[in-house]
Amino acid sequence: MTSIDAAPDLVKAQLPESELPRQWYNIVPDLPEPPAPHLHPGTREPLTVEDMLGIFPRGLAEQELSTERWIDIPEPVLDVYRIWRPSPLIRARRLEKEIGTSARLYYKYEGVSPIGSHKTNSSVPQAYFNSIEGVKRLTTETGAGQWGSALAFACAAFGMGCEVWQVAASYEGKPYRRMLMETFGATVHSSPSELTEAGRKMRADFPDTSGSLGMAVSEAIEAAVGYGDAKYSLGSVLNHVVMHQSVIGLEVLKQLTMFGEKQADVVYGCAGGGSNLAGLAFPLLAENLAGRTTTRFVATEPSACPSLTQGRFDYDHGDVAGLTPLLKMYTLGNDFVPDPIHAGGLRYHGMAPLLSHTVHLGLVEAAAVGQVEAFEAGVLFARTEGLVPAPESCHAIAGALADARARTSPEESASIVIGLSGHGQLDLPAYSAFLAGDLTAT
Amino acid sequence: MTSIDAAPDLVKAQLPESELPRQWYNIVPDLPEPPAPHLHPGTREPLTVEDMLGIFPRGLAEQELSTERWIDIPEPVLDVYRIWRPSPLIRARRLEKEIGTSARLYYKYEGVSPIGSHKTNSSVPQAYFNSIEGVKRLTTETGAGQWGSALAFACAAFGMGCEVWQVAASYEGKPYRRMLMETFGATVHSSPSELTEAGRKMRADFPDTSGSLGMAVSEAIEAAVGYGDAKYSLGSVLNHVVMHQSVIGLEVLKQLTMFGEKQADVVYGCAGGGSNLAGLAFPLLAENLAGRTTTRFVATEPSACPSLTQGRFDYDHGDVAGLTPLLKMYTLGNDFVPDPIHAGGLRYHGMAPLLSHTVHLGLVEAAAVGQVEAFEAGVLFARTEGLVPAPESCHAIAGALADARARTSPEESASIVIGLSGHGQLDLPAYSAFLAGDLTAT
Repeated sequence: MTSIDAAPDLVKAQLPESELPRQWYNIVPDLPEPPAPHLHPGTREPLTVEDMLGIFPRGLAEQELSTERWIDIPEPVLDVYRIWRPSPLIRARRLEKEIGTSARLYYKYEGVSPIGSHKTNSSVPQAYFNSIEGVKRLTTETGAGQWGSALAFACAAFGMGCEVWQVAASYEGKPYRRMLMETFGATVHSSPSELTEAGRKMRADFPDTSGSLGMAVSEAIEAAVGYGDAKYSLGSVLNHVVMHQSVIGLEVLKQLTMFGEKQADVVYGCAGGGSNLAGLAFPLLAENLAGRTTTRFVATEPSACPSLTQGRFDYDHGDVAGLTPLLKMYTLGNDFVPDPIHAGGLRYHGMAPLLSHTVHLGLVEAAAVGQVEAFEAGVLFARTEGLVPAPESCHAIAGALADARARTSPEESASIVIGLSGHGQLDLPAYSAFLAGDLTAT
Repeated sequence: MTSIDAAPDLVKAQLPESELPRQWYNIVPDLPEPPAPHLHPGTREPLTVEDMLGIFPRGLAEQELSTERWIDIPEPVLDVYRIWRPSPLIRARRLEKEIGTSARLYYKYEGVSPIGSHKTNSSVPQAYFNSIEGVKRLTTETGAGQWGSALAFACAAFGMGCEVWQVAASYEGKPYRRMLMETFGATVHSSPSELTEAGRKMRADFPDTSGSLGMAVSEAIEAAVGYGDAKYSLGSVLNHVVMHQSVIGLEVLKQLTMFGEKQADVVYGCAGGGSNLAGLAFPLLAENLAGRTTTRFVATEPSACPSLTQGRFDYDHGDVAGLTPLLKMYTLGNDFVPDPIHAGGLRYHGMAPLLSHTVHLGLVEAAAVGQVEAFEAGVLFARTEGLVPAPESCHAIAGALADARARTSPEESASIVIGLSGHGQLDLPAYSAFLAGDLTAT
């Protein structure tokens, strides 16, 4: 474990705009064993770029299969990133004092983005690479609305249309993110809708359905294929999404030195589809693999959807209907339906193949956190650090708190980095339910 | 008008933490004529520090009457400011391109604060100065909840209790900010409540009332006085609040030089109570008064509550019941009830005496903006710059857009700074109403 001497007063490491990363980092060439390839759902042969062109533009399909270590970030993407990036790395001094830890707690705060989460790190390049290939509009699915609003923002930035199928339960019950998507100019449909064959069939078979993410995926893909001028966009899981998120960790490496830290001793990040944690962790993991650091990485997932800690490591589909390629990943089975917890971004049956691979290799650890423990951590964080974390991020905070509370002596000191993937201002009803004692422990 | 050569690529001027202002700026000693004193509501004599000690701590009462140019910001306040300050000054290049202006548009973005607006610049020092004098809890009123959540956050930061009387209409109809206050640990009451004599009388006389800000003020003051261990806190209007907000403009002065600007040619800020605009403008106005710059300042207020453009400049009370000191200000009369527009933070009958004084002296201009024009500007801003502005901030954007659209040739170029006082993620229903065409023009 390291100690710290420099920068005793610094609270917030804020990189100048000139330090914004100019390349994304792809961990594939640095892994000790190559990850298993995606497979074509029909032939079960390794997926090719051409196989993907029906729903993705060539630029993104090539990134998905790339083995290049560094990929240039196009200037128009950097121009949009500059609105909020580099994001701050903040030392949680008030939280440290409150819990009496000898650890140094830092959080990388992605909530400064236009929509309040890390999702825009990938939505912006996805919209850009579609736009330069002449795609006029993007379709996608969204649950609570984080990804949908990120893509709506990105499409507005590049003058493209955006059509979002939002799970009916969220469309009705969580209207703020729908309003955010519409403010950015997107069209939002409650899913299942009457606009697609898949939606009409679902509505006929189950008139009372409140929808599902898997259903919304099917509608968004069907619509994109049918429109001709549209492509489909996915907000996590895939390799190119993980790579886009690497800007998080690349910035953290520079920011830790501003605090005088030689390394992060432990990194905690929440993992649903996996792109948030992988984006934070992989640039730091590269330092481990090069023998320069000894950082531990812990993926925190909800007890209600424990793909890493309870799932099997095997090929599975990314969607319920089985239309997507087969991905080698930790999965609970593509028919797994998690309990309706408030961290909607973590309710996914699988896990990014690249993150799954690093867990399988023992390079990244995993831990499950209950919902109540997560919100307890979130409320303590809000009352000390002032920022209300997204329910997803609360899982990472809970993991870090349990670690930090066990460190009280100078010898046990360590630098702990928390991936604070977003703020929770549009998730306040969940906090309200927690404060009223209305959450169960799962 | 100035031109710009330097920093052609910079989007976001982000000062390092070491450039955080260490002193607040008080414009009083630099004004060409001294402002009229506040008057005691009973004797109509100039208000003294002692007169204020019933509801304010001595530290803030002294600031209210101070004629010192610079007041040190205490270290514990700086420690909390550092969580989000310095805030960025961002060049709105995408918006410039969209409207085809030759002007250079900048916005000072206060939405990065924990609650998403500038209000924490004053709530933090207010909580601090109360805490060091042994005050155990603060009471305040809030309409939509911006100020209430800012004070709730600040009280949590200094381990104090916080009790907020929220206007019943907002308490019921806009629950997210109430939930935010509760997440920070505050107690929130719907006003009028059964907890105060004033509230009980109101409920008895008007059983169907949905409350008013003036009513909530009376309840918060009555409670603070009755508790003994509590004081009352106000979020705008008064001199000490205006001074706390000067960190905004002090940072802007440094950030303009990062863009190569010699001065801001025009500054637009929304004005309700006045502290947001005054905080941005006064440090720049000081440069004018010293003969170094020729900046124009425009206060944008809603057409529905036009205190600067339609009000009289006279002594008036700050509240409906007439319990507060008499303040020399532009006022529509303390019984004026504005239409229920969505920019709740601008629905105040008066205007900060210091800002009123500068308008009266011709140092600051004023313009009224209609609600529909404000939201049109806000949606255009969201779709180009990616940030959804608070409805209040939309008024400043609308003023700046009208100015910028009239500048198309290089000769008409100018640097225009917009005070973006906060984000609008908790105000999305207002955007939704606008997009649905449900807003009237007032």
